[in-house]
Amino acid sequence: MISESRLQERFAHILSLTTPDSGAGITRLAFTESDWACRSYLLSLMKDAGLSCREDAFGNIIAHRKGKQENLPAVMFGSHGDSVPHGGNFDGIVGILSAIEVAKSLNEDGIQTDAPLEIVLFMCEESSRFGAATLGSRAMRGKLSSSDLIHLKDKNGITLYDALLTRGLHPEAIKSARYDKPLKAFFEVHIEQGRVLESMKKEIGIVTGIAAPTRIILHIHGRADHSGATPMDLRADGLCTAAEIILAVEREAKAHTDPPVVGTVGTISIDPGAMNVIPGEVTIGIDIRSISAEAKADAAKHIEAFAQETAAARKTPLTIDHLGNGTPAPISKEMVSFLSRLCQNDNIPYMTLPSGAGHDAMHWTDYTQVGMLFIPCKNGISHNPLESAKIKDITRVARLLQKAVLEASQESFHF
Amino acid sequence: MISESRLQERFAHILSLTTPDSGAGITRLAFTESDWACRSYLLSLMKDAGLSCREDAFGNIIAHRKGKQENLPAVMFGSHGDSVPHGGNFDGIVGILSAIEVAKSLNEDGIQTDAPLEIVLFMCEESSRFGAATLGSRAMRGKLSSSDLIHLKDKNGITLYDALLTRGLHPEAIKSARYDKPLKAFFEVHIEQGRVLESMKKEIGIVTGIAAPTRIILHIHGRADHSGATPMDLRADGLCTAAEIILAVEREAKAHTDPPVVGTVGTISIDPGAMNVIPGEVTIGIDIRSISAEAKADAAKHIEAFAQETAAARKTPLTIDHLGNGTPAPISKEMVSFLSRLCQNDNIPYMTLPSGAGHDAMHWTDYTQVGMLFIPCKNGISHNPLESAKIKDITRVARLLQKAVLEASQESFHF
Repeated sequence: MISESRLQERFAHILSLTTPDSGAGITRLAFTESDWACRSYLLSLMKDAGLSCREDAFGNIIAHRKGKQENLPAVMFGSHGDSVPHGGNFDGIVGILSAIEVAKSLNEDGIQTDAPLEIVLFMCEESSRFGAATLGSRAMRGKLSSSDLIHLKDKNGITLYDALLTRGLHPEAIKSARYDKPLKAFFEVHIEQGRVLESMKKEIGIVTGIAAPTRIILHIHGRADHSGATPMDLRADGLCTAAEIILAVEREAKAHTDPPVVGTVGTISIDPGAMNVIPGEVTIGIDIRSISAEAKADAAKHIEAFAQETAAARKTPLTIDHLGNGTPAPISKEMVSFLSRLCQNDNIPYMTLPSGAGHDAMHWTDYTQVGMLFIPCKNGISHNPLESAKIKDITRVARLLQKAVLEASQESFHF
Repeated sequence: MISESRLQERFAHILSLTTPDSGAGITRLAFTESDWACRSYLLSLMKDAGLSCREDAFGNIIAHRKGKQENLPAVMFGSHGDSVPHGGNFDGIVGILSAIEVAKSLNEDGIQTDAPLEIVLFMCEESSRFGAATLGSRAMRGKLSSSDLIHLKDKNGITLYDALLTRGLHPEAIKSARYDKPLKAFFEVHIEQGRVLESMKKEIGIVTGIAAPTRIILHIHGRADHSGATPMDLRADGLCTAAEIILAVEREAKAHTDPPVVGTVGTISIDPGAMNVIPGEVTIGIDIRSISAEAKADAAKHIEAFAQETAAARKTPLTIDHLGNGTPAPISKEMVSFLSRLCQNDNIPYMTLPSGAGHDAMHWTDYTQVGMLFIPCKNGISHNPLESAKIKDITRVARLLQKAVLEASQESFHF
């Protein structure tokens, strides 16, 4: 039986491992002492749940539970243990503790599934230490080279390569971390890190896809003139051009509702930036996301066209830097239907929604059927000491995960 | 005769006094060595023009030229000698050198006016050193107290009081600087510091009034959320609210054309300012100017009302700081007609325009009839090493100033 009290105890224990001073939140950067203390504890829980644990060259832990038919493709589930600086105790931990709880519960109940299970603890999901995210998943998907390990450094200049060596891991054998066994499915449970479930009063969110950002930097070249001595019709005000584009980003994102697009101008800088001078040079950073590559490209195209027209009309020429255009990770309709049915069976108020943030799960969508479940977090706050999730919601999603794993691991089940 | 070559020589000499290295422009901060070297040179030119020079407690030089009837109200004209850091050699200097040239020319031609003339060199017009502008004029209008002199400090902590003492002036007697003799008129010649004359292909600008800024700081309190995980309809994006207000400032200023209003958002800061976070706190600085206090108040009222409505609709509450609301200095229709007639007589392409920047002249509009003449400066650039004005334009405006002074100083002339 999935146990709420056991889960609660384990969250408390992890909190005690990482924050002597609870005021500043959780700081559990990948491969640091606190990350390793947490990993050792999670490893002990996996062993306690009767799992056979192995670690790969990158330090990911893959804990095996035998199925009745070991030759069937396994069902994998899990999440990460590291955190951002001054983050919370739920991002990542909800996913790995609920996964371990499923294994523990199956053991207690003497249940053996048809297919084997693989409970996975991913290393280094957060970009906080090495400036790149979901590195453990990338290593397991064969997308991390030893040259990457040398180029990625933390703020103290320590390479990821050396960080792995310090932990007795095997950066020279990084290619061996590639996971190549067949999988039936991959599941990940996570806090939403947004306010959708809370505002819609839903207990479970079924993720329809994992968005990836398109990032564009616009440099607007206006003309800095005296704010008093320059009549309105002789101006080339870079900030007015930027204002039109900021509103166009919002308008264009709102115009895409199925699938939805979100668009944000999160950075702006102006020069010279004085009360009595018209802004000349203005730079804005645009972030556009969707689980649909087509919708995202369409929005980006319209935003850029509008920006060019506006810049021309206002005589403030534009230069554009394309910082990146990530590929969204789609989640199959079959998986969404499967998880929806499980919620309906238990009368759980649920909804489907895209994930705007990246997760380990996104690296598995081209490998196997991926299912991702969100639970609400208070006020949508994450990556912050105020991050909070209810133990009832965590227990509920662990039960749901167990049901999903039990059904997906049946030999006769097909998505 | 007004002499182009003499003017040119004098501009060159002042340049040589202040910039051994011409690349960085002119730095002639009030009461510094370079300011004092320029002042000594200008004083020598005044004496050379046969003027009786006195200095007041603040260091302003008032150079008297006797009229046929010394009891008639004098005609005063002049400008300032100080500059901003890395400024140009024309701001201020065009006004004082053309004023001295008028006196020199009248002497050479043996002309004595009915009314006496007062050529004035104002100290400390720029706010660059002590953070407050037109201090010489304020002293002459009795608007500067010894307590002001103690509170105004430069970046090295030197009080204006001590700066005056260093130059052998009399801060303790600041009240004696108050100018209390009757005046028939005050004239000031200046570079436009804008691009209106150049773009309209006019050689002379007749100023219709001197605008004063209304300055408003808006603090927009949005909510910082994850840019990927927050759908468009759950956002309280502070920057989108700011963008609407930025465009409203422009729209509202443009809606006032007679008299015109200019409106500028010259500063913006956002928090947290990251590509993946919706801007929460956004602060913008608004500068609104007009020569009409009513038009300026009307524009400010509409902008604030729009800002409040937009902030409410977007759920991003607003707090407003009113930094200042200066009173514009009106110039009489009679003076504008008078100067226009002089231009027409000489077939000079001229236009009327407001001054968006402040000048010494603005302190005299409630004391006497004030006339202000602008000449073009290249690309409208001022307060910059690239500041430039043509010697032909300077000579032309000196001749026009002379005609204005000659006519205004006639006993029989009335505005």
